[in-house]
Amino acid sequence: MSFQNPVFIPGPTNMPEALRKAVDMPTLDHRSPLFGQILHPALAGVKKVLKSETAEIFVFPSTGTGGWETAITNTLTAGDKILAARNGMFSHRWIDMCQRHGLDVQIVETPWGEGLPADRYEEILTADTAHQIKAVLATHNETATGVKSDIAAVRRALDAAGHPALLFVDGVSSIASMDFRMDEWGVDIAVTGSQKGFMLPPGLAITGFSPKAMKAAETATLPRTFFDIKDMAKGYANSAYPYTPSVGLLNGLNMACGMLLDEGLENVFARHHRIAEGVRAAVRAWGLELCAVSPEVYSDSVSAIRTPDGFDANTFVSLAAEKYGVAFGTGLGEVAGKVFRIGHLGSLTDVMALSGIATAEMVMADLGLNIKLGSGVAAAQDYYRGSTASSAKAAA
Amino acid sequence: MSFQNPVFIPGPTNMPEALRKAVDMPTLDHRSPLFGQILHPALAGVKKVLKSETAEIFVFPSTGTGGWETAITNTLTAGDKILAARNGMFSHRWIDMCQRHGLDVQIVETPWGEGLPADRYEEILTADTAHQIKAVLATHNETATGVKSDIAAVRRALDAAGHPALLFVDGVSSIASMDFRMDEWGVDIAVTGSQKGFMLPPGLAITGFSPKAMKAAETATLPRTFFDIKDMAKGYANSAYPYTPSVGLLNGLNMACGMLLDEGLENVFARHHRIAEGVRAAVRAWGLELCAVSPEVYSDSVSAIRTPDGFDANTFVSLAAEKYGVAFGTGLGEVAGKVFRIGHLGSLTDVMALSGIATAEMVMADLGLNIKLGSGVAAAQDYYRGSTASSAKAAA
Amino acid sequence: MSFQNPVFIPGPTNMPEALRKAVDMPTLDHRSPLFGQILHPALAGVKKVLKSETAEIFVFPSTGTGGWETAITNTLTAGDKILAARNGMFSHRWIDMCQRHGLDVQIVETPWGEGLPADRYEEILTADTAHQIKAVLATHNETATGVKSDIAAVRRALDAAGHPALLFVDGVSSIASMDFRMDEWGVDIAVTGSQKGFMLPPGLAITGFSPKAMKAAETATLPRTFFDIKDMAKGYANSAYPYTPSVGLLNGLNMACGMLLDEGLENVFARHHRIAEGVRAAVRAWGLELCAVSPEVYSDSVSAIRTPDGFDANTFVSLAAEKYGVAFGTGLGEVAGKVFRIGHLGSLTDVMALSGIATAEMVMADLGLNIKLGSGVAAAQDYYRGSTASSAKAAA
Amino acid sequence: MSFQNPVFIPGPTNMPEALRKAVDMPTLDHRSPLFGQILHPALAGVKKVLKSETAEIFVFPSTGTGGWETAITNTLTAGDKILAARNGMFSHRWIDMCQRHGLDVQIVETPWGEGLPADRYEEILTADTAHQIKAVLATHNETATGVKSDIAAVRRALDAAGHPALLFVDGVSSIASMDFRMDEWGVDIAVTGSQKGFMLPPGLAITGFSPKAMKAAETATLPRTFFDIKDMAKGYANSAYPYTPSVGLLNGLNMACGMLLDEGLENVFARHHRIAEGVRAAVRAWGLELCAVSPEVYSDSVSAIRTPDGFDANTFVSLAAEKYGVAFGTGLGEVAGKVFRIGHLGSLTDVMALSGIATAEMVMADLGLNIKLGSGVAAAQDYYRGSTASSAKAAA
Repeated sequence: MSFQNPVFIPGPTNMPEALRKAVDMPTLDHRSPLFGQILHPALAGVKKVLKSETAEIFVFPSTGTGGWETAITNTLTAGDKILAARNGMFSHRWIDMCQRHGLDVQIVETPWGEGLPADRYEEILTADTAHQIKAVLATHNETATGVKSDIAAVRRALDAAGHPALLFVDGVSSIASMDFRMDEWGVDIAVTGSQKGFMLPPGLAITGFSPKAMKAAETATLPRTFFDIKDMAKGYANSAYPYTPSVGLLNGLNMACGMLLDEGLENVFARHHRIAEGVRAAVRAWGLELCAVSPEVYSDSVSAIRTPDGFDANTFVSLAAEKYGVAFGTGLGEVAGKVFRIGHLGSLTDVMALSGIATAEMVMADLGLNIKLGSGVAAAQDYYRGSTASSAKAAA
Repeated sequence: MSFQNPVFIPGPTNMPEALRKAVDMPTLDHRSPLFGQILHPALAGVKKVLKSETAEIFVFPSTGTGGWETAITNTLTAGDKILAARNGMFSHRWIDMCQRHGLDVQIVETPWGEGLPADRYEEILTADTAHQIKAVLATHNETATGVKSDIAAVRRALDAAGHPALLFVDGVSSIASMDFRMDEWGVDIAVTGSQKGFMLPPGLAITGFSPKAMKAAETATLPRTFFDIKDMAKGYANSAYPYTPSVGLLNGLNMACGMLLDEGLENVFARHHRIAEGVRAAVRAWGLELCAVSPEVYSDSVSAIRTPDGFDANTFVSLAAEKYGVAFGTGLGEVAGKVFRIGHLGSLTDVMALSGIATAEMVMADLGLNIKLGSGVAAAQDYYRGSTASSAKAAA
Repeated sequence: MSFQNPVFIPGPTNMPEALRKAVDMPTLDHRSPLFGQILHPALAGVKKVLKSETAEIFVFPSTGTGGWETAITNTLTAGDKILAARNGMFSHRWIDMCQRHGLDVQIVETPWGEGLPADRYEEILTADTAHQIKAVLATHNETATGVKSDIAAVRRALDAAGHPALLFVDGVSSIASMDFRMDEWGVDIAVTGSQKGFMLPPGLAITGFSPKAMKAAETATLPRTFFDIKDMAKGYANSAYPYTPSVGLLNGLNMACGMLLDEGLENVFARHHRIAEGVRAAVRAWGLELCAVSPEVYSDSVSAIRTPDGFDANTFVSLAAEKYGVAFGTGLGEVAGKVFRIGHLGSLTDVMALSGIATAEMVMADLGLNIKLGSGVAAAQDYYRGSTASSAKAAA
Repeated sequence: MSFQNPVFIPGPTNMPEALRKAVDMPTLDHRSPLFGQILHPALAGVKKVLKSETAEIFVFPSTGTGGWETAITNTLTAGDKILAARNGMFSHRWIDMCQRHGLDVQIVETPWGEGLPADRYEEILTADTAHQIKAVLATHNETATGVKSDIAAVRRALDAAGHPALLFVDGVSSIASMDFRMDEWGVDIAVTGSQKGFMLPPGLAITGFSPKAMKAAETATLPRTFFDIKDMAKGYANSAYPYTPSVGLLNGLNMACGMLLDEGLENVFARHHRIAEGVRAAVRAWGLELCAVSPEVYSDSVSAIRTPDGFDANTFVSLAAEKYGVAFGTGLGEVAGKVFRIGHLGSLTDVMALSGIATAEMVMADLGLNIKLGSGVAAAQDYYRGSTASSAKAAA
């Protein structure tokens, strides 16, 4: 592996120079007023990235998985009923976590490659006249399949059913790279991490709680301490943490929000869409198919590409790493060995994307797939040339 | 605050240049074989630092507090009885965590400034003939009071009582700066963080589990997912994590262990003892007293210094920060306002320690305390000159 | 310009992470023994990279141009006669420098794109029976034209003529990326910089003096102080400099030599040849021609590519920078506007090279050249796939 | 040597974190427009630091010594007469350089420890009715002796004599740490480096040329190429260099100027004066004397401290490095072995200064000098406490 090459895993992403430097700071006393000057702007920045006016933001030294645990343990009680679709590895894992914490999860099995079935949600919620379902889980972007779901539709399902359940959204691989509207969509808890759209090293669970979620936290009894948002809120009121915060990462988060908001969120999303469209043009040129079943669920942060039957997609990932020093993502769970994944989120340019596409072509050719060298590159080049060029300014 | 000055908080510590650079690494695919080349040596290094042949090491993207939660949720079941002394803020917090997770804690109230009462432990354990007590908590070094406890004595208490309870030790501010012998002392779970003796940024909970603790994990039913050691163990077997690991911090941990073991653990401990002795000589020269009641409980990683009655020790910390740009620690909990703390662990030299002592003198004089300028410095200089000089080589 | 994209200028090159970190060091006392522990290994490393057993190495806080000035001012006297071919911008500049310093340069005008005319040298040297020519200048690799000259042939010309003139070689863009044999070729002074094959930031003039050149330094009278090798030699004997050395860059130079020698010089050269061959395959696929007239003068560190008549090659470079954030080299001097240059030296992988080739294709298409998108990429991919893959290990 | 300790050499100085990061930048194409966005603000910043409205600034990849060579070779012709005082190692070296370049230097021998004899200058200049003296050299701050000279007085001497000679000032260890007024003092060429008041790594010669000096450059015939300001000026007009610039250092220079001007030059000078006064208070408390003969020549950037007869001051410097890992300066030239030097310029706080003073005390005691431990520290503490505290904000 050469550190000169970009990575094409769906996070941790390539990091902008400025963010690496922001994270790599000398020791600062986290109980001094200086810390508040990092913490509060970082929290305010996240809130803007979530497009929320009302959310309370809590950031833990943890990961997206810790963010999920924060969501459920702060708002639910053992035995509570949960509604969730399983359409990929990450929705699967979240369901599993709920079960381990003694929640009763009603699972809507959904083909991997499809988005969340908002209509099924509506049926189930409508049927739940006793309002036993306390929360609905929704994975905004299934990193395993490269599938984006329609969170607004899930909200409409809740509203149509007149159901008071909380809406929890896993935005780990969508937030800060794809459009996310916490308030407009009525999201009660949003969860993400530092190492995706925020382009930072891993190490932060980033969560936003709606007022309704904050209210639920008052009565929830699942045990929690490390992930307790009340302790965290109390700390924040004193510009502090209940334990030692990850000061450098928070400094990076503050700067990352600044960079994203300076670029403009819509520009950030458009940039991800452009890079993704180029990758998808390459996939079409290769004659391959995405795991995502239709354009409306195509993810702009990661593409899972189906390889021909009988081909072990894992060999693709290992050969790319060994021979060319480039990291792609393997398939996970149900699609292990059947897809490889190209991450295209975070700090990425057209030019970097082209190097990933070119590498993928070489690897597929090396492994005997019938791929015309340069074909995917040409398709992506054609697209990148014609689309508005913002790459030169991206992620300086 | 100037980043040119060392910090004198009891962690996060001053960081060696080499460790900052090890942590600040470009994105590496955490699912590639390269990651295993960082992970496994880091785990092996921690094991050596813990002086254990048999422990299993688990490192979480979290903090020491997360390490405590790891300890209790993986080995205990709601309602289990726990024995713990409360002699400082950190033992207090750990007890509080246990209670929040539904454990029944028998608390031995102990004056702040004293070590753990091993004799009381022995009485209680001996009386617990039904072996209802499942675990004994012991804070090796109370960061709030600068008090080191005798863990070997706690082990002897357990053994004398013939009691099978697990022994959990919070070594957050002792491990890698003061002697810690996991196997010899029969410690079942050791907990620490990255930002103290390991001289890294915060962000890692570092835990070691004895075979007995591993066995307890098989039946424990407290809910857990993020901190589940079984998921972690399964991940490690594949050189992976159940979620995204903090690759840079793990790379730093690997290098930190290398540095500590190269220096020699006994040399590391002796170095901390030297620095601490100089600080204590200064305290004596000032005519002040430590919070720690007697030399055998003096901590080599942090000194809590009692200020005269009627003096608000918090003003010391704020003036030092505002006027001189130097961070010291405030008193916490019961000793808030009554002590200030000088952290002297991690990457520190005689010369840096002297600058902290000199600053403390100025601040105390500024605040009207009857301190002779240069007196503490002279006492420390005298000690440092005479003791074996290893400072020049320390933490290069 | 995005710092995420590689650069394709013929130096400064892309820098390996490890070298950036080696250069970025805290202040070290350059008069302490520690400095010698950096200096001497760095000098010894350069000597090995030059393939010399006898050279004395002098490294100045300067650039390759300063290295030229070091060569002439330390060994020559105003009025001395010099023989030099002019076949590109850098040979032109060196000649100009000689003239400014009062040397009498006999210039052999040589078409840009051709190598040094060793046969003409031989004729001239043979005719110089009075041995008035004191030095022969030879630019090993003309960075402006992407032309490598045959230094061994120049040596043979000198020997055939039985001429005692010194042989000065500008190896700025060849040393440490292409084969260079100081002793075997009888090079008297070799000159290079830090920012090319050594993959460091600019800021060092690196020179090697043969014993014969050292002898000439005893009687030369051109004025010099900053570039005086006698002061420098006297300094080195005390592990010091006659002024403040660039400690960080020297630390980087030491590590760069270590990396190059660990990889093996022949492997380094082979790696550069591979990358270059891929680029040349792309140029052929585009139907374009190199400025270099024939394969034996093709440079492995930079390719100058002729654009069609009437096309302003400078527009290529500016559009690549503005639209795609990628830096290529412009044409210089006689070939300004007629060529663009792809630098392919230093820290580069196949994958990075492909991104440069892909970008070049887009830019040429944008500017209306008849280039088939993906064609050059495919040709390079085909070559890279088949040649021995060492890229994955390069410049980690 | 521990990189944790500050250095107390009179440059290179301790570097602010932000400047290290500014210097450590990825490769940027120095022929792209981006480079101009670094270069021009850096030049404009230097001009402000020099307090000049009219100077042209030239920055070379070199050192202060290269700056001297720039001054003389661009404005003088072999045989030209020069007036210079020799009162320390650096004035000595500049004289030596002039002589090597064929200039005829009239030397005013001046005791080391005294400032430039402006009255003697006036006598000599007045006597030079033929105006044969073309330039007057003045070392603003003799780094070897810690002596500041009165440049305004030298200007008055020139004016009183009605003499048209150029005034060249070596401000290497004064500019950006002590008051320097290029225009007001009628300085024709000012010379400094990056590694002193600018707090950067070494590697830049920084020069300012008055219009009169620019005019002299039109006719001067000393040979020069690397240091030719005409080539440089031509380059700057195109936002370029005549060779490869040190992009990272220039980026750092730009930021350093910004930091200095943001702090306010007078505040920067006051800060250096404060730190220096504390050091001088310690020297007095030790009962030692400065090399500088009287307060009006005390340097605010470095103090040379005389040790008792028979004591080898070099042993001080080596023991400090070996035993305590702290770098001080040795005596040079005439005062070698008789003084040690404490550098107190650049990025330094009270607290750091105290650690240097404390270390010096230990070393002197170790070597048997009759020094009361803590005495110098106490004197400095007393001073630092009372003087306006700006340290906390300095060099963040």
